[in-house]
Amino acid sequence: MIQQRIKKLRKILVEKNLDGFLVSNFHNVLYLTGFKTLTENEREAWTLVTKNNIYLFTDARYMSFPRKRESREMDPPIKSEDDNVKYKLITPEKGLIKHLQEIVEEERINQLGFEGDDLKVNELQKIKDHLTNIKTVSLEKFIIKIREIKDEEEINNLGTACKIADECLEDVTKLIRPGISEKEIAFKIEFWLKEKGYDMSFYPIVAVDKNSAIPHYDTRAGNNEKVKKNSIILIDYGAKFKDYHSDTTRMIFTGKPSGEMINTYQTLLNAQTQSIERLKIDSNPVSVDQFCRRLMTTNLSYPHSTGHGVGLQIHEFPKISFTSTDVLLPNQVVTIEPGVYFENKWGMRIEDTVLIKEKGEIEVLTKFSKKSLIISNC
Amino acid sequence: MIQQRIKKLRKILVEKNLDGFLVSNFHNVLYLTGFKTLTENEREAWTLVTKNNIYLFTDARYMSFPRKRESREMDPPIKSEDDNVKYKLITPEKGLIKHLQEIVEEERINQLGFEGDDLKVNELQKIKDHLTNIKTVSLEKFIIKIREIKDEEEINNLGTACKIADECLEDVTKLIRPGISEKEIAFKIEFWLKEKGYDMSFYPIVAVDKNSAIPHYDTRAGNNEKVKKNSIILIDYGAKFKDYHSDTTRMIFTGKPSGEMINTYQTLLNAQTQSIERLKIDSNPVSVDQFCRRLMTTNLSYPHSTGHGVGLQIHEFPKISFTSTDVLLPNQVVTIEPGVYFENKWGMRIEDTVLIKEKGEIEVLTKFSKKSLIISNC
Repeated sequence: MIQQRIKKLRKILVEKNLDGFLVSNFHNVLYLTGFKTLTENEREAWTLVTKNNIYLFTDARYMSFPRKRESREMDPPIKSEDDNVKYKLITPEKGLIKHLQEIVEEERINQLGFEGDDLKVNELQKIKDHLTNIKTVSLEKFIIKIREIKDEEEINNLGTACKIADECLEDVTKLIRPGISEKEIAFKIEFWLKEKGYDMSFYPIVAVDKNSAIPHYDTRAGNNEKVKKNSIILIDYGAKFKDYHSDTTRMIFTGKPSGEMINTYQTLLNAQTQSIERLKIDSNPVSVDQFCRRLMTTNLSYPHSTGHGVGLQIHEFPKISFTSTDVLLPNQVVTIEPGVYFENKWGMRIEDTVLIKEKGEIEVLTKFSKKSLIISNC
Repeated sequence: MIQQRIKKLRKILVEKNLDGFLVSNFHNVLYLTGFKTLTENEREAWTLVTKNNIYLFTDARYMSFPRKRESREMDPPIKSEDDNVKYKLITPEKGLIKHLQEIVEEERINQLGFEGDDLKVNELQKIKDHLTNIKTVSLEKFIIKIREIKDEEEINNLGTACKIADECLEDVTKLIRPGISEKEIAFKIEFWLKEKGYDMSFYPIVAVDKNSAIPHYDTRAGNNEKVKKNSIILIDYGAKFKDYHSDTTRMIFTGKPSGEMINTYQTLLNAQTQSIERLKIDSNPVSVDQFCRRLMTTNLSYPHSTGHGVGLQIHEFPKISFTSTDVLLPNQVVTIEPGVYFENKWGMRIEDTVLIKEKGEIEVLTKFSKKSLIISNC
């Protein structure tokens, strides 16, 4: 699979007349090599893809076991015998720059691309200061645009992440009753996943009553509202499997929801399910976004996009929004998540993770029921 | 407290002849305003400090409750009546750039500093393209160097984080016995903290037997070694309290450690405790690093630094290493963490978080015993 990814990348390098591409982004290094460092933000690994080689630069901490990857990881890093992945040791004496100088010389690199939306200003400055003979070319949204089309392995991982999330909510909803707080519900989700060796896609949004009216309510910083006899509960959460994310939002009600709530939910559910269907025939995300908004009644709208791609990160391409310039294509995995928010009253959102298949087919990967939403055991 | 931080920043701006400073880094925005967004990496908030104003730019999701912060947060954001923090709403129509254009005009900003070690290449390009009348100045390690001296509130938070970590390990060590695995121990630490509403400083390193010889063993990706009747267990972990981190490493033994282990441990413990004492009198981190290494016997050394600052991030300044250019000063909080690693055999590290006080005084904030290290209930 990784071979295919490198192939796609190299094809574009040729088109852009680049001799090499330096990858700084944590997720993109993982995508192209299967190699993952402990932290996202500390620049512990870099990748350089040239016409003939793939280099991975990392420090001694990782060098003693770069190829022992475990089931929680993605692919094992490519074996150098197979495909020229060359591990280069970063030390205090010989950092990335010195390695690059050597390779630029050896492989006669004249034009080097880099991730303009990831590389820091001072990192580029250092490269320019020490590699004076080459031209550096800033590319934006480059590998992440390659990543928007998922391969078989990625689709399997995303499917499994969604399945795990379904099972999690199945169990956690059984624990919801009057008296339980937002943070307790969030903790049950986290605990369920971690106990089984998985992780969360992000810290769950659990928003009860008035808090559900805040589109991106921060459960950790919030007032930890408790579920009451008649409550509306928004749960936006996901599971991570082999670094791939799922994203689901479900509404749960305790007691008897009001007529207004039931009507609003029906409108929202209709808009959401029809917009998912729409993905079969519409390749324009702006049009899908507008389609979904039109299905809400005139006084209902939502101050966020209708959906987004999901993969190694929770927010990827394509964006399904008014300003999107993307195209909807087979083997993309996206969310559809319209919402309704009445400030200081309540809000609702329904969200699924959906695979766009070949030939007008889609598969909703998150299968947790959207109908049996009322908890009456209270 | 935040007033003092802004005052320090403004003093340096005057020295550097800057009219304003744009802050992009998540932790630095939090440090200067008390405002925290949901994610670290999605540029959801920016801060601009000018001679007379502090601006916070963020989107609608945060605007409905920017001042409702909870106990898990740091300070409440500064009230605009008090000190001119001005919230500016970022929308698709009016992004950061348009806001900056207005403010640059209003406040007659000619020289604008930015975080060269945080701002992305394409972000700077956009600023340069749209603010053609100003000069942009890249500063590196700017706010993080201000952050190396902790104020009273920060020291209190760090102290509490260390205390929580102590209590956590006190409870978790009771659960360690032959048969328990690395991931199970890590999970117990995580669960203990999360259940009480705290968080981890980082995913714990729990390394059993041979794995303890890998300085930065990745417990999540590792082979999940189980504790045996005679095992050596390295636990490197921390708690987070109000965004402030603690950092501790302890060695635990089951059964009877070998004579070599006991001797090595004594040497290491002696080096570690004497190096902590050394912080009272030595303001040169390079010298402390060398001092600690000299106390190990000639055949024992460690392929990492002796310590680092701790605060809003787990790795801050000052660095206590051979290459450090920092100065050890009162009100810094640092780790001292020498180790010994015998490849394919076992390793040891002892680490504390230490407050450097005024007048040759220090306080070890992590107080979990370094002596009662043998678990015999097995």
